[in-house]
Amino acid sequence: MRFNFKIIVSIVGLLLIINGVAMLLCLPFSVYFRENDWKALLVAGILTYIVGFICWYKYKDAKNKELKKRDGYIIVTLGWLTMSAFGALPYILSGAIPSYTDAFFETISGFSTTGASILTDIESVNKGILFWRSFTQWIGGMGIIVLTVAILPFLGIGGMQLFVAEAPGITPDKLKPRIQATAKRLWYVYLSLTILECIMLLLGDMNFYDAINHSLTTMATGGFSTKNSSAAEFSAYTQYVITFFMFLAGTSFTLNYFAFKGKFKSIWKNEEFRYYSGGTLVFTLIITATVFSVTDLSIEKSFRDSIFQIVSIITTTGYVSADYTSWTPFLTLLFFTFMFIGGSAGSTAGGVKIVRHIILLKNSFLELKRQLHPSAVIPVRLNNKAVSQTITYNILAFIMIYIAIFATGSILVALSGVDFLTSIGAVATCLGNVGPGLGDVGPVDNFASLPTFSKWILAFLMLLGRLELFTVLILFSPYFWNKV
Amino acid sequence: MRFNFKIIVSIVGLLLIINGVAMLLCLPFSVYFRENDWKALLVAGILTYIVGFICWYKYKDAKNKELKKRDGYIIVTLGWLTMSAFGALPYILSGAIPSYTDAFFETISGFSTTGASILTDIESVNKGILFWRSFTQWIGGMGIIVLTVAILPFLGIGGMQLFVAEAPGITPDKLKPRIQATAKRLWYVYLSLTILECIMLLLGDMNFYDAINHSLTTMATGGFSTKNSSAAEFSAYTQYVITFFMFLAGTSFTLNYFAFKGKFKSIWKNEEFRYYSGGTLVFTLIITATVFSVTDLSIEKSFRDSIFQIVSIITTTGYVSADYTSWTPFLTLLFFTFMFIGGSAGSTAGGVKIVRHIILLKNSFLELKRQLHPSAVIPVRLNNKAVSQTITYNILAFIMIYIAIFATGSILVALSGVDFLTSIGAVATCLGNVGPGLGDVGPVDNFASLPTFSKWILAFLMLLGRLELFTVLILFSPYFWNKV
Repeated sequence: MRFNFKIIVSIVGLLLIINGVAMLLCLPFSVYFRENDWKALLVAGILTYIVGFICWYKYKDAKNKELKKRDGYIIVTLGWLTMSAFGALPYILSGAIPSYTDAFFETISGFSTTGASILTDIESVNKGILFWRSFTQWIGGMGIIVLTVAILPFLGIGGMQLFVAEAPGITPDKLKPRIQATAKRLWYVYLSLTILECIMLLLGDMNFYDAINHSLTTMATGGFSTKNSSAAEFSAYTQYVITFFMFLAGTSFTLNYFAFKGKFKSIWKNEEFRYYSGGTLVFTLIITATVFSVTDLSIEKSFRDSIFQIVSIITTTGYVSADYTSWTPFLTLLFFTFMFIGGSAGSTAGGVKIVRHIILLKNSFLELKRQLHPSAVIPVRLNNKAVSQTITYNILAFIMIYIAIFATGSILVALSGVDFLTSIGAVATCLGNVGPGLGDVGPVDNFASLPTFSKWILAFLMLLGRLELFTVLILFSPYFWNKV
Repeated sequence: MRFNFKIIVSIVGLLLIINGVAMLLCLPFSVYFRENDWKALLVAGILTYIVGFICWYKYKDAKNKELKKRDGYIIVTLGWLTMSAFGALPYILSGAIPSYTDAFFETISGFSTTGASILTDIESVNKGILFWRSFTQWIGGMGIIVLTVAILPFLGIGGMQLFVAEAPGITPDKLKPRIQATAKRLWYVYLSLTILECIMLLLGDMNFYDAINHSLTTMATGGFSTKNSSAAEFSAYTQYVITFFMFLAGTSFTLNYFAFKGKFKSIWKNEEFRYYSGGTLVFTLIITATVFSVTDLSIEKSFRDSIFQIVSIITTTGYVSADYTSWTPFLTLLFFTFMFIGGSAGSTAGGVKIVRHIILLKNSFLELKRQLHPSAVIPVRLNNKAVSQTITYNILAFIMIYIAIFATGSILVALSGVDFLTSIGAVATCLGNVGPGLGDVGPVDNFASLPTFSKWILAFLMLLGRLELFTVLILFSPYFWNKV
C-alpha cells in the first residue's frame, strides 16, 4: 500500500481528541453566563473526544513508524477537514446555526482563521458557543504555526524553505527534535502575546469576555468578533491596541520571538519585515489623506480608520471598524488588491504572503536585466542571499495557481447566481483567509445570503488558501496516486 | 554613445512616410462620398510625409550600420508612439475629434488594434476619416506580424522564440533574409484573407464601404466598426462571416499560411491551435446553453450571439453583436476572464496569448509533480518538445507582470474617480487590446466619458499590451541606461 493508513487515522484521531477537549474548555462560559448551550458543547465535546480516542487508540502503535511525505499531505488536509466537520457540532446541537452547510462554513472559517461569517446577529448567540467560535480561530492559528515551521518545509511547499532557514535553532542535522523545540517556542510567543493583548484590552472599554475573545481572534489573524459591528463597537484606545496586535500577528513569529529576546537588529535585517512595516506606513498615509479629503472625519479618526482597515486586511485578520467600500472606488480597489498580499510568512496570516511578492517583484525586475544579458545567470536575492532557481520557480508557480484558482472560483460562485462584485470579493477574501469582501459580502455584511453551492466552494477555498494550495491540490493530481 | 541615434531617427522617419502615404490613401473615400474631410486628410498626410521624409533623408546612410538590440527597443516603442501622435492629426484637423487626448486615444487604439473608442456617434463621422480609423488598425496588424516574426525574437521577448521556431522557412543560419521573406509571406496571407473576407461580406447585406472597413478591422483583430451598434447592425450571414474571419485572425498566420498550402496536418499538430479551437468550441456550447436558458432567444440566435461574442473577445477583436454584460453575472465574469486569454501567438491578437497559458497550465500541474520528486528535472513540453527553463521562466514572469500592471492600472484609473467595475474593465480590455469592457465602458458604451487622466493611462496600457510589455518596460529600467 502506498499510504500508511494506520498512522493517518491515528494522527487525525489525536487531532479530534484535542478538538473535543477544546469544546469542553468552552463550558465555563456557558456556566458563568447561565446559558443553556452547555448541553450542546458537552455532547459535541464528548462525542468528538470519543471518536478521536477510538481512531487514535486503535492505531496508536503506528506512530512509531516513519511518517512519509505522502502521508503528510493527507494528514494535513484530512486533519483540517475532520476538525471542521466535528467542530460544526456545537453550532448544530445548540441550534445557533441550524443548517449544516452554514455550520461547516462557520467552522472552517474559524479553523482556517478566515473570519467570514454567516451569522446575521452575532450578539444573540450564546456566550459558550461564541467562545467556541473564537477558539476555533486560535486553534487554527496554532495549527498554522506548526504547519509553517514543521510540516510545510518537510513537504517542500511553496518556498517555505525560505522561512525555515530563518527560524531560530533549526539546522539540517537532528531536524526533528529541533523543529519540535522551535514549534513549542513559537507557541509560547503566540500564547504570551494573546495574554498580553487581553490585559491591554481589559485596560480599555472591553469586559473580560470580549477581551479574551478578541485576543484569541486577533493573534490568529482570524477576525471573528463578539459584536455585530465588529471593532467599530469599541473605543479609540481599544482599536489602536487591536491594530498593534494585528500587526504583530501578521509578523513572522520567529521575529516576535527575537523581539522577546531583545534582538531588534535581527528583526530589522529581515527584508520581509522592512517591506511589511514600510508598506503599511506608506499606504496608511496615502489612505489617511484620501479618507480625510473625501469624508468629514477628523484627522485622528481618518488615520485610525485607515491604519485599522489596512492592517486588518493586509494581515488577513478581517476586523472592521469602518466600511472601506463606502469611501471612494479608488480605496475599494486598493483594499481589494490588498487581499492578495497576505501577511508575513511564518505568521498566522493567510494569503499569498509578502515574501512571495518581494521575490516576484524582484524577479520581474531582473527579467528585464536578463533580457539584455541573455547568457548571464541572474538570481533573485533575499536578505542578501541568492534564492535558488527552484524556489523562485516554485513561488512563481504558486502565485500563478493562486490567481487561476481565484478566477475559477469567482466564475463558479457567479455560476450560482451571485453578482460580479460579490463573487470576486467573496472568493478573494476566502482564498486569502481575510474575512470581509465586496458587494453583498462587504465589511458591514455577512455571507448568510449566499447560495449553498457557493458556500461549499468558498469553504473549500478557505482550506485551499490556508494550506498553501499545494498541500491540498497535490491530492487531486494523478502523480500523487500513481505508482511511480 | 550607447544608442545609434541616427538609425533610430531614420527608421522612425520611414514609418512616418508610410503613415503619411496611408492617410493620402483614404482620400478616394472623401472624394467618392463628396465630403469635406479631404482637406484634413491631405494636410495631415503631406505634413506627416514631410516630417518623415526629413527624418529619413537626413540619416538615410545610417541604415547600412548594424542595428543593435537596444536600438530595436527604442525604435519599436518610439515608432508606435510617433505614428499615433501623427495619426491623430486627421481627427483634429477635420474636427471629428476636437480634443487631442481623445484623438490620440482613438489613434493608439487603432494602431494597437485595440478598438476602444471615444466616439459617441460613429455614423456622423465623415467617411474618409472613418476609413483612416479602420486603416490604422490594419496597419497596426501588419506591424504586429513583422514584430512577432522578426523583431521580438531578435529582442528576446516573452517566449516568442517558441513561435518563431515554428514559422515557415526560418533557420538559424542566414536569419535576416529569411525573416524578411517570412514577413512578406505572412503579409500576403494577411492581405489575401482581408480581400477574401471583403468579398464574402459583399455577398451579404454590407455595402462596399462597410465591407472593406470591417475586413480591415477584422483581420487586424481591431474591432472598429462603421456602425454605432457594431456588428449587431448586420444580418446573421454577415455575423457568421465575421466570426469565421475573426477566428482566422486570431490564429497564427503561419498556420493560415499552412492552410493556404493545404498542410492541414501541420495545423492540427500545433498544440496552441488545438487548445484554441477546442476551447472556443467548448465555451461556445456552455455559453449558448446559458444564454438560451436565461433569455427568450431562439437556439440559433443564442448560438450566434455566443460564438460571436466569445470569438470576438478571445481574439481580442472587440466587435459586439450582443451585450454580454446583460445576460448573467456568470457570463459577465467569464467574458471578463477571457480578456486575459488573448489569441494565438503569431496572430494579430493582443493579450497574454494562448500558448503562454498552456505553458503556465502545464507548468502549474508539473509543479505538483516536482513537489513529490524534488530532485528530478521536469520540463514543460509543447508540441512534443521540451521548453527550456529560461523560456518557461520568462513566460511566468511575463504573466505575473501582466497581472501586476492590470492591478496597478486599475487602481490608477479608479484614482481619477472611475468606479470599480469600469476601472477593472477598462484596464483589462485596453491592456489586452480587446475593445469593450465592463460598467460604463461595456459592450454598448464607449470611453468618451472617462477623465483625461485615465485616458492617458489607458492609452499607455494599450501600447504596453501590444508591444508584449517587455519592449516598453525595459526602457524604464536602469539596466537599459546603465553603462554596464
